[in-house]
Amino acid sequence: MLIPDNATEAMLPKGVKDFLPVKATKIDFLKSSILKIFSQWGFRPVIPPSLEFLHDLERGLGAGLREKTFRFDDRQSGKLVAFPPDITPQVARIVATRMREMPLPLRLCYSGRVLRHTEMQAGKDREIFQAGVELIGLDSPEADAEMIAMAIECLKALGAQEFTIDIGQVEFFRGVMENLPITGDRATQIQAAIARKDNSGLKTLLSDLTLSEQVRNEILALPRLFGGREVLRKAGEVVTNDRSRKALTNLQKVLEILEVYGVENHVTFDLGELRGLDYYTGVTFQGFLSGFGRAVCFGGRYDNLTASYGYPAPATGFAFNLLNLLFALDKELDSLATCQTDVLIFQAGPDKEKAQRVAQALRKKGFSAARDIIPRDLEGSMEYARKMNFRFVMTLMPGEEVRIISMTDESERQVSYSSILHPSFAL
Amino acid sequence: MLIPDNATEAMLPKGVKDFLPVKATKIDFLKSSILKIFSQWGFRPVIPPSLEFLHDLERGLGAGLREKTFRFDDRQSGKLVAFPPDITPQVARIVATRMREMPLPLRLCYSGRVLRHTEMQAGKDREIFQAGVELIGLDSPEADAEMIAMAIECLKALGAQEFTIDIGQVEFFRGVMENLPITGDRATQIQAAIARKDNSGLKTLLSDLTLSEQVRNEILALPRLFGGREVLRKAGEVVTNDRSRKALTNLQKVLEILEVYGVENHVTFDLGELRGLDYYTGVTFQGFLSGFGRAVCFGGRYDNLTASYGYPAPATGFAFNLLNLLFALDKELDSLATCQTDVLIFQAGPDKEKAQRVAQALRKKGFSAARDIIPRDLEGSMEYARKMNFRFVMTLMPGEEVRIISMTDESERQVSYSSILHPSFAL
Repeated sequence: MLIPDNATEAMLPKGVKDFLPVKATKIDFLKSSILKIFSQWGFRPVIPPSLEFLHDLERGLGAGLREKTFRFDDRQSGKLVAFPPDITPQVARIVATRMREMPLPLRLCYSGRVLRHTEMQAGKDREIFQAGVELIGLDSPEADAEMIAMAIECLKALGAQEFTIDIGQVEFFRGVMENLPITGDRATQIQAAIARKDNSGLKTLLSDLTLSEQVRNEILALPRLFGGREVLRKAGEVVTNDRSRKALTNLQKVLEILEVYGVENHVTFDLGELRGLDYYTGVTFQGFLSGFGRAVCFGGRYDNLTASYGYPAPATGFAFNLLNLLFALDKELDSLATCQTDVLIFQAGPDKEKAQRVAQALRKKGFSAARDIIPRDLEGSMEYARKMNFRFVMTLMPGEEVRIISMTDESERQVSYSSILHPSFAL
Repeated sequence: MLIPDNATEAMLPKGVKDFLPVKATKIDFLKSSILKIFSQWGFRPVIPPSLEFLHDLERGLGAGLREKTFRFDDRQSGKLVAFPPDITPQVARIVATRMREMPLPLRLCYSGRVLRHTEMQAGKDREIFQAGVELIGLDSPEADAEMIAMAIECLKALGAQEFTIDIGQVEFFRGVMENLPITGDRATQIQAAIARKDNSGLKTLLSDLTLSEQVRNEILALPRLFGGREVLRKAGEVVTNDRSRKALTNLQKVLEILEVYGVENHVTFDLGELRGLDYYTGVTFQGFLSGFGRAVCFGGRYDNLTASYGYPAPATGFAFNLLNLLFALDKELDSLATCQTDVLIFQAGPDKEKAQRVAQALRKKGFSAARDIIPRDLEGSMEYARKMNFRFVMTLMPGEEVRIISMTDESERQVSYSSILHPSFAL
């Protein structure tokens, strides 16, 4: 059978990838570091299934995600089933149907993989690796701030140096836009111009509409309302509608709490864009690492989602996109998550008992150790250890002698077999 | 919207489940404990994708798994894609197409979820949680023994008390059966009778076949060839065909190595059954916990699988079924993987700065801590802490005073706010 050189690319559907040990070690490190912080903040795991009835899942999906959902006929039930494109609606369903007798708030976390259809040419990931939290039952700014502070703590723990959490408020945006007396295509074009921060395009689109000066000014201000905390003040000078002003007060409170956390330097604002998923109802945010355009985390308040499963409760949450993190932090992760084994144990001759005992002793001490059980000479084992990134080669000689060769500098030391079995032994 | 009481059951397709925090904590513990041991034995992670082209995946699937595979048309490629029912063929593909320039042996591990169709009434899991290893490039009994020894070490680490690894050898079985001069339905019936250990049924099925006395005796012996190590001796007395005798010698060597590991007491043999997946070619094994009928792990040698992706290499591997482990070890896991948070922090009044500082300090020390940011009184917080299984409630009083109440025995102690921030503070 002939496998072409570019076999990998050819053999996998677009938008999914194999991760070999070097990258997989980094992904595992990202996931476990993030989940450890979630746990330290009191969040507890839930594991939703990979299959749901489409009908039930769709209650919690906006139009954007519905059309991206992998779906098919279920042989067993005869109903349409789906692979979830998003985990938050699954957690909302679990809370609403299985945890409603628990006292609020609920702090829940998850990690998992979701599938989303993408456009043919986009080259985007169809399989998305997520690790996220949901905080259910609290509508206070404290809860929104907790999400943002936790995201920042995670990014610091992952070795990120320069990053920002860019905060929005969908209620601010909606407060301005609800005074726009049109819907349909023109409204969509206007939103797109705002998102592109295209001031002159926006002006043209508004020019023939009958708007009060105040409404026109508020809409025209939107593309400029991004940047540091001064954005909140600027916005307060422009908008007069109640809905937007309430949203600004809410943002101001969140910012004050973030100042107590001491993380306000990582925060920026963007009030001129309606980003993220359809179910958001308040503060939203996205995390960006310097020099990397795609968001590494995203989240926000979704006060109506559990209600669509029959249990109304305010809620907020966010998730990391692990593959975007992997891409953005690849260099930092080289030293934090090295794909390496401590010791390769080599014993010539037919009797392998000592090698086995040494391996057991090393593992009991917490070291990683593999035995070279292929028939080859020491030079062969050294070559293997070098290529496979072992830290040390341990050669068991006849009698008591053991040689330990460091693969970093090829230095060698000799120890006795029994000293390795002793609790005091260290590499 | 009305949600019936049995909403959960009704809302999920059969064969998949939601896991709430108590069970999810246990699953996470099982997975991380197993992966830690895999890593200590020198195995490195790979992450295959959730989607593959059906055509490529099927190269590595036997008939049994092919018909259980979830498949559908891919909107993007127009080709049939599938959700993998088994991870081993994915790892074989990865090794054959993307790691062939790496020196052998390769020690690889994975954890993931696979989907399999099941019969309508079976009530079996369709989503299977696995954590497994593949050892590629070694055909020696050392490699088979390494798999079994590692499975045993994992089971011990998970708190399993009484368990056995039941070892088979497909070559032994095939050596006996290849002298049966029939195929088709009757052959299938004969295999089924052997698997049921149905001696008299087997006798009847063989009665009108023209067989040499030797062949008849070998086949009739199969249902009795299970039990302790004496099985190997008994089998040696019965079989004379070369293929089976070679398989016995191989098993004998594996057993000798397991004796050096000191784990032979956990080992039983069953030579009268062809269990497991179609791709096995030598030693196979399954792990059983006392009192639980389903295997918690299974594996074996598969020397032809990577060749079906263009790269011939001997290989062996095994995987744990995490949900079977969860079921079998549920009680043991109550103490090993408790769903618990260390401290609930309560501060009355509008200023929450101290509560935030205390939370940060506790987390820095490695404790888990959540803040009760809902407006309620201390009694309300205590009630919440009890129901949500917190270990301590910490109440920040005005001034320096902090009260720490143990939820285990309701005992209370007082400390100063600044002492908690001090590095020497312990719970």
